Amino acid sequence: MDGMAGTASGFDFDAPRAMRGSGSSKWDLAHLMLGRDDPDALPMWIAQMDFAPAPCLVRAAEAEVARGQWGYFTGIEAMFDRVAWWCDTRWGWRPDPAAMRATHGLGNAIGLCIQTYSDPGDRVIIFTPVYHEFTQKVRRNGREVLESPLRVGPDGRFELDLDGLEPKLNGRERIMLISQPHNPAGRIWTEAEMTAMGDFCARHGLILVSDEIHADLVHPGFAHVPAGTAVPQHLDRTVILTAASKTFDTAGLRVGTTILPDAGLRARFDVLHRGLDIQPNRMGVALTAAAYSPEGGAWVDDLRVYIAGNAAVLAEAVAAIPGAAMMPMEGTYLAWVEFAGTGMTTAEIARRVQDGARIVASPGPAFGTGGETGLRFNIGTRRANVAEAGARLRAAFADLQ
Amino acid sequence: MDGMAGTASGFDFDAPRAMRGSGSSKWDLAHLMLGRDDPDALPMWIAQMDFAPAPCLVRAAEAEVARGQWGYFTGIEAMFDRVAWWCDTRWGWRPDPAAMRATHGLGNAIGLCIQTYSDPGDRVIIFTPVYHEFTQKVRRNGREVLESPLRVGPDGRFELDLDGLEPKLNGRERIMLISQPHNPAGRIWTEAEMTAMGDFCARHGLILVSDEIHADLVHPGFAHVPAGTAVPQHLDRTVILTAASKTFDTAGLRVGTTILPDAGLRARFDVLHRGLDIQPNRMGVALTAAAYSPEGGAWVDDLRVYIAGNAAVLAEAVAAIPGAAMMPMEGTYLAWVEFAGTGMTTAEIARRVQDGARIVASPGPAFGTGGETGLRFNIGTRRANVAEAGARLRAAFADLQ
Repeated sequence: MDGMAGTASGFDFDAPRAMRGSGSSKWDLAHLMLGRDDPDALPMWIAQMDFAPAPCLVRAAEAEVARGQWGYFTGIEAMFDRVAWWCDTRWGWRPDPAAMRATHGLGNAIGLCIQTYSDPGDRVIIFTPVYHEFTQKVRRNGREVLESPLRVGPDGRFELDLDGLEPKLNGRERIMLISQPHNPAGRIWTEAEMTAMGDFCARHGLILVSDEIHADLVHPGFAHVPAGTAVPQHLDRTVILTAASKTFDTAGLRVGTTILPDAGLRARFDVLHRGLDIQPNRMGVALTAAAYSPEGGAWVDDLRVYIAGNAAVLAEAVAAIPGAAMMPMEGTYLAWVEFAGTGMTTAEIARRVQDGARIVASPGPAFGTGGETGLRFNIGTRRANVAEAGARLRAAFADLQ
Repeated sequence: MDGMAGTASGFDFDAPRAMRGSGSSKWDLAHLMLGRDDPDALPMWIAQMDFAPAPCLVRAAEAEVARGQWGYFTGIEAMFDRVAWWCDTRWGWRPDPAAMRATHGLGNAIGLCIQTYSDPGDRVIIFTPVYHEFTQKVRRNGREVLESPLRVGPDGRFELDLDGLEPKLNGRERIMLISQPHNPAGRIWTEAEMTAMGDFCARHGLILVSDEIHADLVHPGFAHVPAGTAVPQHLDRTVILTAASKTFDTAGLRVGTTILPDAGLRARFDVLHRGLDIQPNRMGVALTAAAYSPEGGAWVDDLRVYIAGNAAVLAEAVAAIPGAAMMPMEGTYLAWVEFAGTGMTTAEIARRVQDGARIVASPGPAFGTGGETGLRFNIGTRRANVAEAGARLRAAFADLQ
């Protein structure tokens, strides 16, 4: 029943792989999070997947090795052309390759934006709970985080609270850093919500940094809403971050694309980008270009279906635990499960998940205000692992059922 | 006679390779420098070599592709252990892995040092003629270059002129950025010269940034003089940059190691290094670790012999041109040829080399004061190409002979 045999791309997402000892951080560092060695623990934390690379990536990598040319190289502009084609084909927005800059992954891009568009002591607005590195990056750069906690709406999905944010401003805000789709839970901000955020930025003189790294991983029936088309009137203050790294699981190759439609923002960005000689590596460029292809697209289409199937499996298990609720997912492979309804403390929830279910998930508190009693589960793995995780969770909270 | 058949490593440096269209910047961008397409032009500019990768790199790259694990990864500490082993084995200096930081190549490292240890408007001292990017990196970061022109000593080699430098100081100097061995020409600064530079830095409160990227490419009979052993008394103000990228021709993988023996300098460096999330990529880490091995060392030993042989071939040709002089090389594959004695202008020299000899060399003026009538020739190529270049140069200046 797990079977994805018969996917359009012919790719078997159910195929087992030897992950332990592969150098995957998610697997080989899980003992650090767990505080013990446990070969049967299920790592569902760091956002990387367990599938074999898409065949078009394997071929590209093999071609690079056969070529054996690791010196200074050409082809970055060609990669940007592929990025433009991909955004156009997949999202309906065709950015100008001249507006693109390669960065060493999106963490690097976020750091460059913070350094470029704010000064030490300035504030960056984020919507929590959100990818824990947003806060870390802001603080590591000596800036201050201004949290705007998300509300959970009547349909169980995250909602913005911009009215609640407004009175918290003190004039030192410079950047609004968003995750679209939102990490965790994969909420896709609507055009109306994106417009509200863009208008807010315009009203308060902020730069909108839209991290769209999960854009390709929207679930069937949903479509990504890129800043490029959602807030065309605000592109003079918007920076869009994208990458193949989540979609094709190439984060370790450290290549991302930062899109700066506004020439003024671009010129400011270039000061540090050029001063620090931020240039991508050949393997990362080759695999990114190979990923952004019709064949890569077919693979992603199958991946999206598979991930949505995984989400359904986990949601069913969580639904059986009184007081636990998995947020309905619109995209990403990062499920958000809220345990507040169990009445348990953060420590008790963590104990049951880590020691009881032996699952290494991402602890909610790191995601900021609103994350206290939640956990993020990475379902970018074989269906069998997700089913096993669901069964273990049910068992770990069996006394409630 | 070209034959290196019978090298200790068994590697054939004379083997022809198809370089055009391989994505090598040196070959595929040569037309930009030349101003025309010329399939018979010899590119001897950008510092990358034409040899196939060392077999230990090929195997490591194949293993990475077979593993197919391109997400977040472990293994950076293991790479640092290999760096420490290599520096110890090859240079007689064992740096502490805890003092190392991975950077995206050394251009990135230089930019980070400039940003960290100086403010806009401050001055960085360089010894010219030197790698043209030193000047560019200083200026791109809004700092000022203070040139200390090298003298040509009685033995035809570059010499420092620290006495001449002293009166030029205005108090805004923060960094002395050196290339050890020196690029171009491969002069290896002696322990006495390194000490003089270190003392100068101590006297004026400067940080010494020692770019030792060419350290492994010293010619037979010479030994690298690392800052680590040459100026132990100044390591509290010294930052050492190293990489496998010149030695093994992996600059396109963008991994370098910055060594900061002083905890205080390291803490300052970490602010931007961590804030900008500077982390290396998996392929670069894998190949660097593979390079820094006994097998990699044997390959480099053969390479050094081969490069020195190339240097002799070019030197012989240049010696036949009245008024031209190739500086005796101690290391690197970057030969420096001074044409001042021909009495020709910079433009005339460039015309004869580019249009007459159809060689794309690096124009001397970009290397700063003292480089006006010189040209840098990259001899990291097949012996046959160097011999051809020598013959073409002689022909282009035949009227002088």
